[in-house]
Amino acid sequence: MHTPHGKVLAFDFGGTKLAAAIIDKASGEVLHYAKRQTPKNLGSQGSLDIICALGDEFLQKNGAEEIQAIGISFGGPISRDGQWIITSQHVKGWDYFPLPQVLSEHFGLPVFMENDANAAALGEWFYGAGEKCENLFYFQVSTGIGAGIILNGKLYRGMGMAGEFGHLTVEEDGMQCACGKLGCLESYSAGWSIASHAKALYNQLPSGSALRQLTQNQAEMVTTELVFEAYRQGDAQMQTLVRSAMHSLARALADVVCILDPDRVVIGGGISKSKDIMQAEMMPGLEKLIPGFLRGHFDLRFSVLDGKETLYGAALLSEGGFR
Amino acid sequence: MHTPHGKVLAFDFGGTKLAAAIIDKASGEVLHYAKRQTPKNLGSQGSLDIICALGDEFLQKNGAEEIQAIGISFGGPISRDGQWIITSQHVKGWDYFPLPQVLSEHFGLPVFMENDANAAALGEWFYGAGEKCENLFYFQVSTGIGAGIILNGKLYRGMGMAGEFGHLTVEEDGMQCACGKLGCLESYSAGWSIASHAKALYNQLPSGSALRQLTQNQAEMVTTELVFEAYRQGDAQMQTLVRSAMHSLARALADVVCILDPDRVVIGGGISKSKDIMQAEMMPGLEKLIPGFLRGHFDLRFSVLDGKETLYGAALLSEGGFR
Repeated sequence: MHTPHGKVLAFDFGGTKLAAAIIDKASGEVLHYAKRQTPKNLGSQGSLDIICALGDEFLQKNGAEEIQAIGISFGGPISRDGQWIITSQHVKGWDYFPLPQVLSEHFGLPVFMENDANAAALGEWFYGAGEKCENLFYFQVSTGIGAGIILNGKLYRGMGMAGEFGHLTVEEDGMQCACGKLGCLESYSAGWSIASHAKALYNQLPSGSALRQLTQNQAEMVTTELVFEAYRQGDAQMQTLVRSAMHSLARALADVVCILDPDRVVIGGGISKSKDIMQAEMMPGLEKLIPGFLRGHFDLRFSVLDGKETLYGAALLSEGGFR
Repeated sequence: MHTPHGKVLAFDFGGTKLAAAIIDKASGEVLHYAKRQTPKNLGSQGSLDIICALGDEFLQKNGAEEIQAIGISFGGPISRDGQWIITSQHVKGWDYFPLPQVLSEHFGLPVFMENDANAAALGEWFYGAGEKCENLFYFQVSTGIGAGIILNGKLYRGMGMAGEFGHLTVEEDGMQCACGKLGCLESYSAGWSIASHAKALYNQLPSGSALRQLTQNQAEMVTTELVFEAYRQGDAQMQTLVRSAMHSLARALADVVCILDPDRVVIGGGISKSKDIMQAEMMPGLEKLIPGFLRGHFDLRFSVLDGKETLYGAALLSEGGFR
């Protein structure tokens, strides 16, 4: 495996946050870094303005001549050739937008783009918990559920949409998913769905329940974090709910392990910060649902790049050997 | 993609049959071919004797100097380095047997070995219904269920056990599988399980049912082929059974498509000869269980190499670029 070199300007266009960094690829050092809220009502142009301003500032601070390329992580589906955004579920104005071309014209640098799950997988694989293993399955559980796959030391894309882990079926004829089908993992185990299931149960919760106390008896205050906190405080209903969500994740992951037989699985995304819960409630399901002959084939780790995995992956996109 | 060249002596060590061929890799022509029953009570030595005799005969007929290498397809798990058999569920004496070394000493040629699902995937990919596509998911439904995966034009093995399609969970806390876990696809949709479910139902079948007539009222005469024939004749119980088996296959396949996003799926194995049934009963499940954005991403085809796919794949193993 070759050692990457040079500095890259990396951007993360997320639905809730924007981030920019200059990363030294060889050392993995983050030389400049800034994070901003994604402006909600200014569409794609609002995000572009912020990113371009951060990029200009970093290039001035660092010296533009040292920067080799730009890497983009985008929070939504992109075209197979990496030249177009398909859409964003969170911000208007991105449909069929040629983001690499626009940023290339602004900055005068070559630009490479990936969706956020693939970028995060690449970043975590090379600079984080993946430790440059041969075959990595990286999945992230945050508001939604996504995954990125590294096979034989390269990003694997299939026909452009590989790793749609959130759409594995966990309950046939179950809940309606935005993708059009029923019973997708995302409807049971993603951050938004855990919070939404807790809200749906709210009126049936005993008045002294931990979730009611944590949310001051107001259903609209329910968040995934508070559901997890209620779980920790012994709220029986929330324990059942969280257990079921984590078990669905385990079931889907066990199926992926049967197909890919990876040497490492890395869990990222906001939910993975609650390691205590994932370890307690996902591991028994994995033990049960992975065939004996595959147990011990892989290491399971948690993300270590603390929210910067997409930027790290974006930086690595300029290295031809890994994408 | 380079063009393979030269002639290979290819062997298929199956649980029920043994086969040998000389294959011209460039043209895909089968120059000599023979098939034998696997001797049941003579252990691994019985199979070896037959294969060595066929190989000797073919080398004499063809001229040994033209043969470049030997390729083996083995019906059971092999070690990751391809040098050892792990076990055979059907024939005794294969445990930890160094088959490539033994055949190399006998024939004086380099020997390459794969398990049968991987060999079949490789053969069907290059010489058959896979048409050298970029990413292929090949699965076979015969007595058992196996799969082989070609990614970016090469066989993908994971840590040595990739493609364990038969062990995806289709019914949690369902039937006990030989792998140690419950509810594996193989327990519902493999040939042996379809026949075994039909036998379990036999006493409850109406005396005029098609299956009872086809089996002359003797449960022990039930085979998968006769269950399928009863299905075709309108036997309501057998239609329910077959529909359920095919739907489980569809569900597992839909999950694989979400993860791998292949450009082609090829179905092989004995059961795939009943295309009418697979098309009628598996396609509706696939339509239902694949997210809208992945429909139309892949072509689904049936195997075209008519039982020789393992030999074709074995022949291709001597080409370094594909394994």
